[in-house]
Amino acid sequence: MALKDLSTAELETQLTDARDAYAKFANRGLLLDITRGKPSPEQLDLSADLLTAVTNDDCISPSGVDVRNYGGLEGLRELREIFGELFRVPVDQILAQGNASLTLMQQALTFALLHGTPELDTPWATHSRRIVCPVPGYDRHFALAEELGFELITVPMDDEGPDVSAVRELVATDPTIKGIWVVPMYSNPTGATISEERARLLLDMPTAAPDFRVLWDNAYGLHHLREPHGQMLDVLALAEEAGNPNRVLQFASTSKITHAGAGVSFIAASPENISWFLKHLGAGSIGPDKINQLRHLRFFGDAAGVVAHMAKHAELIRPKFDAVISTLEAQLAGSGIAGWTNPDGGYFITLTVLPGTADRVVKLAAEAGVKLTPAGATHPYGLDPDNAVIRIAPTMPSLEDVSAAAEGLAACVRLAALEKLLAED
Amino acid sequence: MALKDLSTAELETQLTDARDAYAKFANRGLLLDITRGKPSPEQLDLSADLLTAVTNDDCISPSGVDVRNYGGLEGLRELREIFGELFRVPVDQILAQGNASLTLMQQALTFALLHGTPELDTPWATHSRRIVCPVPGYDRHFALAEELGFELITVPMDDEGPDVSAVRELVATDPTIKGIWVVPMYSNPTGATISEERARLLLDMPTAAPDFRVLWDNAYGLHHLREPHGQMLDVLALAEEAGNPNRVLQFASTSKITHAGAGVSFIAASPENISWFLKHLGAGSIGPDKINQLRHLRFFGDAAGVVAHMAKHAELIRPKFDAVISTLEAQLAGSGIAGWTNPDGGYFITLTVLPGTADRVVKLAAEAGVKLTPAGATHPYGLDPDNAVIRIAPTMPSLEDVSAAAEGLAACVRLAALEKLLAED
Repeated sequence: MALKDLSTAELETQLTDARDAYAKFANRGLLLDITRGKPSPEQLDLSADLLTAVTNDDCISPSGVDVRNYGGLEGLRELREIFGELFRVPVDQILAQGNASLTLMQQALTFALLHGTPELDTPWATHSRRIVCPVPGYDRHFALAEELGFELITVPMDDEGPDVSAVRELVATDPTIKGIWVVPMYSNPTGATISEERARLLLDMPTAAPDFRVLWDNAYGLHHLREPHGQMLDVLALAEEAGNPNRVLQFASTSKITHAGAGVSFIAASPENISWFLKHLGAGSIGPDKINQLRHLRFFGDAAGVVAHMAKHAELIRPKFDAVISTLEAQLAGSGIAGWTNPDGGYFITLTVLPGTADRVVKLAAEAGVKLTPAGATHPYGLDPDNAVIRIAPTMPSLEDVSAAAEGLAACVRLAALEKLLAED
Repeated sequence: MALKDLSTAELETQLTDARDAYAKFANRGLLLDITRGKPSPEQLDLSADLLTAVTNDDCISPSGVDVRNYGGLEGLRELREIFGELFRVPVDQILAQGNASLTLMQQALTFALLHGTPELDTPWATHSRRIVCPVPGYDRHFALAEELGFELITVPMDDEGPDVSAVRELVATDPTIKGIWVVPMYSNPTGATISEERARLLLDMPTAAPDFRVLWDNAYGLHHLREPHGQMLDVLALAEEAGNPNRVLQFASTSKITHAGAGVSFIAASPENISWFLKHLGAGSIGPDKINQLRHLRFFGDAAGVVAHMAKHAELIRPKFDAVISTLEAQLAGSGIAGWTNPDGGYFITLTVLPGTADRVVKLAAEAGVKLTPAGATHPYGLDPDNAVIRIAPTMPSLEDVSAAAEGLAACVRLAALEKLLAED
């Protein structure tokens, strides 16, 4: 029965029970962390052989490059071929770089700020600028754009992606709106995948800024939890079809495929955007770490090798997602005080609690030993107007710990809701 | 006898001889490249064991960090301790980052352009800006600053570093002059090492810009060719003594210590500068490749390990430098048409030819199979007003090839000089 339909007396009884449940959980003295989307040690172990895939006797790439020396700004061609195939991009339109796609996003935005774009040589830094942030979204996207002087404008997300009507209306008349963040598959934090229809609408909509960019952070495009899974959109082809080939900058990395701190990042875009990016990149780089790229090439062998590797990740991660979902289901279904996503991939579950209680839930959980991402982190400026969204990152802890964390979290959600309902009563 | 003292007839005889010598060299059909400061394969082999220094069974740092996962923006502490000791910097004032110190320079300048500095929050991008470039200098420094919108102002270099009187005069009154490039030891390309007196003058000079920076690119500070060698200046302490602790940003890397494309870069600065750098760096990075940093830590063990390793490089490089110098000596000494540096470290020799002939020498050499850095590359905008400076990079080719290249180069220098002297005659 939904809590809101209970009488005050019934709520008070429930509150006593909820306090007991919470105290019992807190007394277990656990120390659990489900804040960040980090792979578990077991996931990292899947890439064990990568570490010894390049030795000094064997440090020449298939096309004859001594990967130990300088050069090769675009990244190792054979590795770009594999990830080009996976991300549906011609090899000349994808670059392989350092260990973080976030750095590529910072660089792309910085180059636009300082130099303008292929379409418009007015540096973005010379005028006020805004960026569209679908919410809930990824805190580091918001923080990066804020650091770079963008005003963050919120639009809602649903199961098929951003509210494109809202976006279209915003960008049609405001030339200071220069872009939108999109995590196309298994988005952070809801797990939603953008529909082809929404993608097409973003790619062909009229924009007042001639160099508007869709920052297509395809961080989880290969991170399926279940079979069969959806197909990745060929976003560069869609942009070209829409007559806006330069509109998309696609980002990806192997951070959650091989080693989180020592993977390879990728940027894919139109030929014109790639030339533009390389020109500015080359002022500060002679080339990325090709040894690590050759390690990745040898470890995977080909695109099928990446797919097979990702299936092993899914085997390790899926039970953790399932444990969180089933615990939330068991503890909170029908209570009317919480909803949650049940994603088919990616790294996160979004828990939506009774409006006004997310910060209280996070605080209660912390005091009981469960560390969560701060309430509001999924929104620009850390401000969730409903104070209702909590991001759960189930991958890093053990299955046992993640189950315990979900149970404790459910107790916090219930307690916070009852406190609120009684306070309003 | 100096060529300028010869009669026309004598010059004509010499020209015929020089043409013969050049033709003989060109007919050997060599293909030699002494353009870039790249380590040779034998130098790269010195770091063979680094490639297997981290395996999956042993991927935890001494302080307990699983280097495969995210985090640790500052870089691996134990590696920063080693390089802090070598560069005379407290561990909290040095960061270990990705594979290129050039990228750190680009980032530092970009952060100042977009955000200003600890002393002055006016972003440098909001006004015209200039940077002092001692010449001859490093082409990538000049290109990076030009890309970032700095006007490049030239001052001369001599054996003790930049002409500090000229610098002091420039910076005293012009607040748009925001910095100076300095390669303190074994500079690129002359091999000169800055004297402590010059360094102190740069560090305590009054500057119209309150956030003037000395970009101290200590790329070759550990790259001694001969013993005994000079001591590295404690530049951060000197800056602090001068009352300008924030004035210096020091850069270094292991690109020419371990693997040119896959080393570790370092930035060292005042605590205030380090906080500033980390704040902006953190918007685009969760941390550098710690696996590679742990490889370096294990490979070296300690600072003495680095020093011992550099002695092995010197054993490989020194004969190449000596071969170039002795060939130039044998072919050109006393001719009055060329001078050259004889550095105690670093990667380059500067050859100064008869004014007006450097581009001709480079062209003749190319036609005879010896590729040199373009004439002018050692000067801002590629413009050497004397058309006289040529950079020689002897490290990459074999000893035999570098000797042949030097011999051919000498023939080109002589031929170009004779052509010029006769044309003027």
